[in-house]
Amino acid sequence: MAGDRTTPGMRGPYRKGVERREQIIRSASEVFGELGYFGGSLRTIGDRVGASPATLTQYFGSKEGLLAAVLEDWQRQAGRGLLQDDPLGLEYFRALIRVTEFHVEHRGLLELFITMAADSTNPGHPAREFIQRRYADVLGNCTAKLREAVDRGEVAPMSDEQIEAEVRILIAVLDGLELQWLLGADIDLPALATRYLEHAITCWQSGRSIS
Amino acid sequence: MAGDRTTPGMRGPYRKGVERREQIIRSASEVFGELGYFGGSLRTIGDRVGASPATLTQYFGSKEGLLAAVLEDWQRQAGRGLLQDDPLGLEYFRALIRVTEFHVEHRGLLELFITMAADSTNPGHPAREFIQRRYADVLGNCTAKLREAVDRGEVAPMSDEQIEAEVRILIAVLDGLELQWLLGADIDLPALATRYLEHAITCWQSGRSIS
Repeated sequence: MAGDRTTPGMRGPYRKGVERREQIIRSASEVFGELGYFGGSLRTIGDRVGASPATLTQYFGSKEGLLAAVLEDWQRQAGRGLLQDDPLGLEYFRALIRVTEFHVEHRGLLELFITMAADSTNPGHPAREFIQRRYADVLGNCTAKLREAVDRGEVAPMSDEQIEAEVRILIAVLDGLELQWLLGADIDLPALATRYLEHAITCWQSGRSIS
Repeated sequence: MAGDRTTPGMRGPYRKGVERREQIIRSASEVFGELGYFGGSLRTIGDRVGASPATLTQYFGSKEGLLAAVLEDWQRQAGRGLLQDDPLGLEYFRALIRVTEFHVEHRGLLELFITMAADSTNPGHPAREFIQRRYADVLGNCTAKLREAVDRGEVAPMSDEQIEAEVRILIAVLDGLELQWLLGADIDLPALATRYLEHAITCWQSGRSIS
């Protein structure tokens, strides 16, 4: 994995620093996912990779700096689960649902996200702005794609307000099912998410959206 | 509030102990909701009510003992949001959705629950068993009530497997919308939850359940 991100031919000491930085970020991602941001101390994070809290501060400035690096890394990795092209209208939603397969294969990334999101219900949490921006982006993208599906005639007409309600509920279904799965529910997460989406699409097509 | 729970006429020193215990539980509920279980130290919890960590240990045995008291208190308080009678079939779901109004008025209880649930995606979390039991109870109750609605002819026939899928998705919608609301989304949580439920009921009645 580290090999993907370092540039071949980098000189020894610099390369070693980059790898060390990535080790620390991976440790912090695990620890924040398991213990939350406030529960995950620099000492615990450092212990897992044999580094002192002082070394971590040297690399990232502060615990908040390390969190920023962890979230940036999460975003890059989670992005690998998305399609590289930009499917139109309804196809976008089918591609979005396939992301749950990526989540099932990368449980740690999902656990980190859900833990940071729930942590950020605390208005003073340092991840709150990142999480809020993430939700705003997902809402904005999905809203635009459902509007596109309406405009292309793939589904029946809907008001902006109906579109927002449909999208918020779809996002809620995904988050909620992921939480149940992480808590050990015996479900086929991608299959159940797909069933909900196909049901929603049938309703959208026949003009029976949530209203 | 404390007056609700202490018995009138209790003798001074005993009563003082009960009130002190309740103050500590309230402080711990706030702190665990804000910082998570691992992030909320006995010192932080004690500081908010002018008690030392040693006093907290004296009352609750350990931090895990205090968590158990917090979860028990949460369950008692969340129970006040439920109807005291036991509505049949579909009426049960309409009553369940009204619980979101209670949640909006008691944000701290909701924040504590969502934080503990996300924390408990860590298999070693001391709240995990409580949270898993809670989900199993809600799933079991809702499944029985939707089966009852089928048997009473309120909705079209559904297989057990369809009923479980419908209920898991309903629970996901509630958790997911609550998370969005806690993260600051500009939504009318009870209204949006009600819209989803009424849509689901219409689908159940016309035999268009998720399948």
